[in-house]
Amino acid sequence: MDIQNLQFAERFNGISGSAIREIFKLLAVPGMISFAGGNPALAALPNEQVAELAKELLLDNGKVLLQYGATEGYAPLRESLVPYLKDRFSFSCQENEILPVTGSTQAMDLLCKALINPGDKVVVENPTFLGNMQCIKLYQAELIPVDSDDDGVDVDALEEVFKKEHPKMFYVIPTFQNPTGRTLSLPRRKKVAELAAKYGVVVAEDDPYRDLRYAGQELPSIKSFDTEGWVAFMGSFSKVISPGLRVGYLAANPALLRKCTIGKQSSDVHTANLNQAIVDAYLRRGLLMPHVESICKAYGEKMNTMLGLLAKCGGVARYTKPEGGLFIFAELEEGRNALDLLKKAVEKKVAYVPGTHFYAGGGHENTFRLNFSMPTVEQIRQGMASLHEVFSEK
Amino acid sequence: MDIQNLQFAERFNGISGSAIREIFKLLAVPGMISFAGGNPALAALPNEQVAELAKELLLDNGKVLLQYGATEGYAPLRESLVPYLKDRFSFSCQENEILPVTGSTQAMDLLCKALINPGDKVVVENPTFLGNMQCIKLYQAELIPVDSDDDGVDVDALEEVFKKEHPKMFYVIPTFQNPTGRTLSLPRRKKVAELAAKYGVVVAEDDPYRDLRYAGQELPSIKSFDTEGWVAFMGSFSKVISPGLRVGYLAANPALLRKCTIGKQSSDVHTANLNQAIVDAYLRRGLLMPHVESICKAYGEKMNTMLGLLAKCGGVARYTKPEGGLFIFAELEEGRNALDLLKKAVEKKVAYVPGTHFYAGGGHENTFRLNFSMPTVEQIRQGMASLHEVFSEK
Repeated sequence: MDIQNLQFAERFNGISGSAIREIFKLLAVPGMISFAGGNPALAALPNEQVAELAKELLLDNGKVLLQYGATEGYAPLRESLVPYLKDRFSFSCQENEILPVTGSTQAMDLLCKALINPGDKVVVENPTFLGNMQCIKLYQAELIPVDSDDDGVDVDALEEVFKKEHPKMFYVIPTFQNPTGRTLSLPRRKKVAELAAKYGVVVAEDDPYRDLRYAGQELPSIKSFDTEGWVAFMGSFSKVISPGLRVGYLAANPALLRKCTIGKQSSDVHTANLNQAIVDAYLRRGLLMPHVESICKAYGEKMNTMLGLLAKCGGVARYTKPEGGLFIFAELEEGRNALDLLKKAVEKKVAYVPGTHFYAGGGHENTFRLNFSMPTVEQIRQGMASLHEVFSEK
Repeated sequence: MDIQNLQFAERFNGISGSAIREIFKLLAVPGMISFAGGNPALAALPNEQVAELAKELLLDNGKVLLQYGATEGYAPLRESLVPYLKDRFSFSCQENEILPVTGSTQAMDLLCKALINPGDKVVVENPTFLGNMQCIKLYQAELIPVDSDDDGVDVDALEEVFKKEHPKMFYVIPTFQNPTGRTLSLPRRKKVAELAAKYGVVVAEDDPYRDLRYAGQELPSIKSFDTEGWVAFMGSFSKVISPGLRVGYLAANPALLRKCTIGKQSSDVHTANLNQAIVDAYLRRGLLMPHVESICKAYGEKMNTMLGLLAKCGGVARYTKPEGGLFIFAELEEGRNALDLLKKAVEKKVAYVPGTHFYAGGGHENTFRLNFSMPTVEQIRQGMASLHEVFSEK
């Protein structure tokens, strides 16, 4: 039988792969300045430090690291995460409430695996991270977008949706959100935790950018206000150590975490031990926060440079003013199309991500997302000058 | 709302976690001799070599390795896999037909994600690897077991099932099968490839043990007889380099591989680059096969020791005689129960896995699986002496 007859699973209906990851492939052109990714700066990746740690860990404990590990995770890392979560995210949990995962994308996948039946409803911020929207769609959930403003998601609208639609889950990025860079305010964090318990909705709190703060005051996590166990917290070391190592974690109530752990047995058995041990060494030896400080200094300068240039950029009507993270979200004047203009921008060797991809229902074609962590300050100047030219043309 | 009200997804109905992985937790007792796992011997894990490689790779190319990678995999590894697959598994493929994955368990998960709708039928060998049976069950497929004999799966029975049941997929471990240690004969390999194309059934060929041959003649893969693209080949470096690194690969026709790649975007974005680069170095520098030879020498001696002692073991009616791999499968006399006897064995500080777990329909309580790679030769002697005592009691 011809292989053309092969039928794929229904979950792939309407799924075409991440638009962003397809844009990334176009960026290989020499001289391209990319504001499109969400990548750390190369200078922020501590390869010499990781080289020494990897060698040391493999010589000291390599038989354990190279052998099969527990699906539940590398025990020393779980131990190190307890005080880290208390210190950085203001919530207490036990080791058996933490599951190291293969990047926090896997945490999202496992939560969906544990919870979502086809047709279930999942509420997302409008706009939100499109990678995780694709993950949710592959579980055949119905996405319900709720708008946000400068203080994050509109909690009154959220309550209406919780009440009327009985969603299974609410996916939220509370700090330096992707794509907007906005941070959910303290009163709204409390409110989200309260609504989750009131209506029985699992909150999937995704907070990978939190340690990248360049201004303003830290806020406690939504999970720190969770009294009943409805908030599942997804963390990542991709933005503060290395995305290439693929280490994140999920902190959730034990019953939910147990289902995720069984799901993980069939996903990849366990997260690579060496990678977990490297992250553990960063936490255990106090290497993480000094490294984060050095990153933040450089990233803060880049963000401020880009914000300053956006203020003078032709055609730009509005943009967010983040206090940290990796992204700024901007709007062109009404009626203009950032998707069409991307072609012209790429001709001038600068790229961004059209904002429409981040809206569950599409539209908003005049919006776009800019990343400032990956380019150098000089590239930011050059790239913004090119965007000024592209956007100023009528 | 009390978290007790949380409803899990229907895919978890009847799923309780891998029975084997639960047995593993009981093995932490000091002095326990385990024939239960499928772990490499600690001596076979090349931690000093990996330590040097990791350091060198991170110093030379660490910015790339620690940055985000492509979902499609680390390009040098895909390049290295092409000649490796040709040389070791006798099939030709292009780089775009290979997807590095986070252990071959992920290959199984991605194939199911790409292909299986709830209620679809998946044919498995009877008995077979229970980890992947759980993976298939989580996609809510119906498992159809087909019996095997010393030459592997019964291809006449297989054809009947293909004809009558129209399954979506056939999962098969052709070489030194888990749990039986049996190898599918050459004529049957050809026949399986032929039946796949005739009836339009995807063959998921899982061949992680192949390089661990201690006797007899190598056979080409089922995929080497695949003319239409119905065979998807899952490979792993867990048994020949390290399971803790979590690196495997999937080789399949481009249309199927594309769906699996989109599925992987949402599973873990990409497999950790450092881990892929370490495996690439083993292939590229010719380090793999010398390492495999040294492993095989030790494992062959262990297998022969265990086979010799099984011949004299009380209560054992029958056992397989593998030419490689990690496992021997044995039967007690009819009416005896290996599940009950495991408790007595554990009291005498020796463990195995009851065979019933490997049968899709249960039963076969008189069977059990023995692993010989992890224990030392001395531990094999001690453990088999204890089993002789346990099984000889009436």
